[in-house]
Amino acid sequence: MKRIVLLGAGLSSTNLIKYLLDHSEIHNWHLAIGDLDTATALRKVKGHPRASVFQFNIFDDNLLKTTVAGADVVISFLPAAFHPRVAAACLEARVNMVTASYVSKEMKLMADDIRAAGLLFLNELGVDPGIDHMSAMQVIDRIRAMGGKMVSFKSNTGGLIAQEYDNNPWHYKFTWNPRNVVLAGQGVSQFIRNGKYKCIPYHKLFDRLLYTTVLDYGEFEIYPNRDSLKYRETYNLQGIPTMFRGTMRRPGYCEAWNVFVQLGATDDTYTLEDSMNMSYRDFINVFLRYDPEKPVEQKLCEYLDLDPDGEIMQKLTWLGVFENRKVGMPNATPAQILQKLLEEKWALEPGDKDMLVMQHEFIYELGGEEKKITSSMAIIGKDQEETAMSITVGTPVAIAVKLLLTGKLNLTGVHTPVIPELYNPILEELKTFGIRFVEES
Amino acid sequence: MKRIVLLGAGLSSTNLIKYLLDHSEIHNWHLAIGDLDTATALRKVKGHPRASVFQFNIFDDNLLKTTVAGADVVISFLPAAFHPRVAAACLEARVNMVTASYVSKEMKLMADDIRAAGLLFLNELGVDPGIDHMSAMQVIDRIRAMGGKMVSFKSNTGGLIAQEYDNNPWHYKFTWNPRNVVLAGQGVSQFIRNGKYKCIPYHKLFDRLLYTTVLDYGEFEIYPNRDSLKYRETYNLQGIPTMFRGTMRRPGYCEAWNVFVQLGATDDTYTLEDSMNMSYRDFINVFLRYDPEKPVEQKLCEYLDLDPDGEIMQKLTWLGVFENRKVGMPNATPAQILQKLLEEKWALEPGDKDMLVMQHEFIYELGGEEKKITSSMAIIGKDQEETAMSITVGTPVAIAVKLLLTGKLNLTGVHTPVIPELYNPILEELKTFGIRFVEES
Repeated sequence: MKRIVLLGAGLSSTNLIKYLLDHSEIHNWHLAIGDLDTATALRKVKGHPRASVFQFNIFDDNLLKTTVAGADVVISFLPAAFHPRVAAACLEARVNMVTASYVSKEMKLMADDIRAAGLLFLNELGVDPGIDHMSAMQVIDRIRAMGGKMVSFKSNTGGLIAQEYDNNPWHYKFTWNPRNVVLAGQGVSQFIRNGKYKCIPYHKLFDRLLYTTVLDYGEFEIYPNRDSLKYRETYNLQGIPTMFRGTMRRPGYCEAWNVFVQLGATDDTYTLEDSMNMSYRDFINVFLRYDPEKPVEQKLCEYLDLDPDGEIMQKLTWLGVFENRKVGMPNATPAQILQKLLEEKWALEPGDKDMLVMQHEFIYELGGEEKKITSSMAIIGKDQEETAMSITVGTPVAIAVKLLLTGKLNLTGVHTPVIPELYNPILEELKTFGIRFVEES
Repeated sequence: MKRIVLLGAGLSSTNLIKYLLDHSEIHNWHLAIGDLDTATALRKVKGHPRASVFQFNIFDDNLLKTTVAGADVVISFLPAAFHPRVAAACLEARVNMVTASYVSKEMKLMADDIRAAGLLFLNELGVDPGIDHMSAMQVIDRIRAMGGKMVSFKSNTGGLIAQEYDNNPWHYKFTWNPRNVVLAGQGVSQFIRNGKYKCIPYHKLFDRLLYTTVLDYGEFEIYPNRDSLKYRETYNLQGIPTMFRGTMRRPGYCEAWNVFVQLGATDDTYTLEDSMNMSYRDFINVFLRYDPEKPVEQKLCEYLDLDPDGEIMQKLTWLGVFENRKVGMPNATPAQILQKLLEEKWALEPGDKDMLVMQHEFIYELGGEEKKITSSMAIIGKDQEETAMSITVGTPVAIAVKLLLTGKLNLTGVHTPVIPELYNPILEELKTFGIRFVEES
């Protein structure tokens, strides 16, 4: 019997657990799931005879050691910051490891030792990073095999509410980690277009939009997503004149979100005095000029040149930012206050389904001609447990674990799915789960 | 004989050294000056018989130990980050210490031990922090002694080029650390006005200006200066409804500087690819939309809504930001590239004199009436060695050292000049150096 250890049974682990248990009988696997909160994990295994659940605390070094010992593979679905601890324990115990997260600096430093030990540590196997890498590299390698030369690569991803359940003026609900949504884009965003480097500071990010349609899922707007330049190395596209990655939202979201960015309401670096007794209206007023003669709404419209009767003000009013209701959070940062309000308003309702959209655009030269391929994927969640996020994050991880445990991977060291040995079988099997890229030339 | 050790003989130490040597005969002092660069220190002591110069490296622990041993007082004019090392050595060797910098966290932690050892560590004795504290606290304590209640305190400081030598469209030259000028205001600025907290993110800072005139030195514009709230504790003004600190520039500076802030050209957190071969024109273009049909100037004007023939574009053109001249700096951050250009254009010319302006506004209630005092100070440098900065930073430090060595201070522990024992004698003597506050009621 092969022993699989999963650390972390949070939101995105539902389909990972389901897949592993569905395949556990035929492959003779046992799945041990460790989490601080055993109740959630127990609910997800539904009494499956090949599963066990234990309480796990990443700060307990001895527990980590005994947990890892004797496993055939350890999957870390803990917050990414904890992966290096797990990786060190796995290396010491000579156990393979799989994550959905970016390869950490610490793991890069261990890579030689991991290879020398004959182990395989797989990473970036979720959706973004993960399915984005696989679906892009499969097309890029095909273009290269034809003798084509890549001149432009653009890739956009969005986690959104499915159209049918989109019933608020923002056309957005939280289907991912709310904190990450509030802080999204902070720092600088970089890309390259026709050989010209472009850098956009955070305060201009939501003002520099692109637009697209995805299959018959409608229109989306796109804002640039952090450092697109580093993906040249990931995809072996050094010297490519155009490289861009973006995040997709429904039209109108970004111009309204930009109000919070312009105000400074997404700042997470300092706490507001007396945030406990402040109202949401006071909170907005903190960022506006002092002028007791004018209501907050008027000051905001004048400050950011907004139409008092326009869609932006309608979105803000719907959120309740002008209400006199108390925040009730002590020592909160602006971002935390905003998140609290958004979590009330952008929560998924019972029955709601989420959606994940991804679209790549490849432009290449072949035989003196410039050609274009657009590759698009959209998937709707099944329910609130088997969300599009859980399906797209958990399923490729699960398939990779199967490939590893069934001896299909002739690899050692630290890897991501930018190689055919990984992306081909995983993408093929993902189709059976409805994760299918549709190409248009 | 009393032995004074000065660590760091940089720009702002000229008048400190001059004062200490001018008073060394009468008080029987010896001044030992340590710096990495002994040439500058030797030039400043001009062969004075009571001075010695030695090479000093703060990373040499043994050297620090032997340097401090046997001194009566150590003055640290090193970069502020090194004060804690010096403080630890002084505490161990039982030697008093003086700096012009903010009390560091590390020194706060040592405060009990410093007091227990009967030592005195004086800080914040330059101009800002320093003269600002002293001149403000003297008036605040006087208002309190009259039975007045402070309701508003505003304080503004500016280091600028003296009017007579102001010959560029920015009305600005570097009279302080250029790097600090380029990065000024990053983070959030906070203040309180009539009981309302106000927070301004960096990208809105140069758009939220106030205006003032100072004596007969003309007009100034003011932008908010970081965290004004913490000064409520410094000045014992807890609960005051209005507290604001700002930085002064000549009118028109901020709206033009705001162009760099809006573009993201003051960002110091990432390096630009190929900055070596980039021109200043390319540098500006990095932050603008991709559009090969339009010249950089036109794109900039459209992006930030600038008048192509207006004063802002004239200022930018004068700086040379649209020139095809190469930057020639490898792996540079945007802020570093901008600083390089500014250092060429905003350099002091031979014969130029700098200016320091400071202005406080106190509003208080007394006998049911609201009263106002405005206290203003301006000082022009003598030449390029005895700058206004060197006079205002070095002289109060020197006077404090004199008070300490002549037994005038009945204090132990860590102190700043917010107490009458310090501010009264220092402000009194500063008048003889032309640092004089003029009050208007």
